[in-house]
Amino acid sequence: MDIGTVNALPYEDFVNIFGNVVEKCPIITAAVWSRRPFANLAALEAAISDFIEALPDSGKEGILRCHPDLAGRDLQSGMLTKESREEQARAGLDALSSAEAWRITRLNEEYKRRFGFPFVVCARMNDKEEILKQLSERCVNEPAVEKARGIEEVKKICRLRLQGVVLTDAHNKL
Amino acid sequence: MDIGTVNALPYEDFVNIFGNVVEKCPIITAAVWSRRPFANLAALEAAISDFIEALPDSGKEGILRCHPDLAGRDLQSGMLTKESREEQARAGLDALSSAEAWRITRLNEEYKRRFGFPFVVCARMNDKEEILKQLSERCVNEPAVEKARGIEEVKKICRLRLQGVVLTDAHNKL
Repeated sequence: MDIGTVNALPYEDFVNIFGNVVEKCPIITAAVWSRRPFANLAALEAAISDFIEALPDSGKEGILRCHPDLAGRDLQSGMLTKESREEQARAGLDALSSAEAWRITRLNEEYKRRFGFPFVVCARMNDKEEILKQLSERCVNEPAVEKARGIEEVKKICRLRLQGVVLTDAHNKL
Repeated sequence: MDIGTVNALPYEDFVNIFGNVVEKCPIITAAVWSRRPFANLAALEAAISDFIEALPDSGKEGILRCHPDLAGRDLQSGMLTKESREEQARAGLDALSSAEAWRITRLNEEYKRRFGFPFVVCARMNDKEEILKQLSERCVNEPAVEKARGIEEVKKICRLRLQGVVLTDAHNKL
């Protein structure tokens, strides 16, 4: 899909295609449609990043709270979004030993109790060992540091999901 | 459900229960969880309203673009959220004559072409005749007027959805 095609999409198609590049936050995609035309994919990504940065702190926390736990209830019950399911599976989070599953559940609970939002990490850039290590380390961060870190991870996830949508065509011009 | 119960909800339950009071925008509910405790239901509603008002114009347009057309494709295909389906059915929009269906489709298209977001109205406060009348009249508004009007309707929908969630218990104290 080239950028001309993206820029020509009616908002309904734009939101259908890109609505989950930030997990369960189609409002963000729907908002940045107002900023067409985009010069390239990086410009679309920057518009999303700008929108997120302009949100108040509570809005950033809201984004994080729209994310599922890693290897959590939604994975077990099949309720993950398609994107999250693929990302968690690729990192090996759907095939944990019972010891690993127990450890990640305990750490997720500790993290949420401390921060009031879930641990968010770009699963596609990490395997399960690295994710468990980061979760354990990040549990002791200051809340403000961890909120900023979570949002940086949201942006990494967004970049890879955007690329996944538009870079599937070998002749794309983005 | 009394306000004490609402205030005691972990964010995951809070978002599960209230996440669609603004259509497909769980980020808003997830954000205002940061503002607990709420004195009463009106305070929760006000927190949501404040969050919406603090969004840039593009964010308000984003909220509107997360709404389905009335009597549109998502109703026909069974893809509406539970809340929207009930609201549209109550207004009689799932039982239009072919002449009414043709007229509302044509007006929805005209509205979207003019404004870049869909016609949003609190369907529970109107029947199909009134909705068709308003849609026809509002098509000629100025874009800024219509954006503000759409957001006012979003807030009416939100109020009724909130009440629908919490006022189902006869002994509630909200």
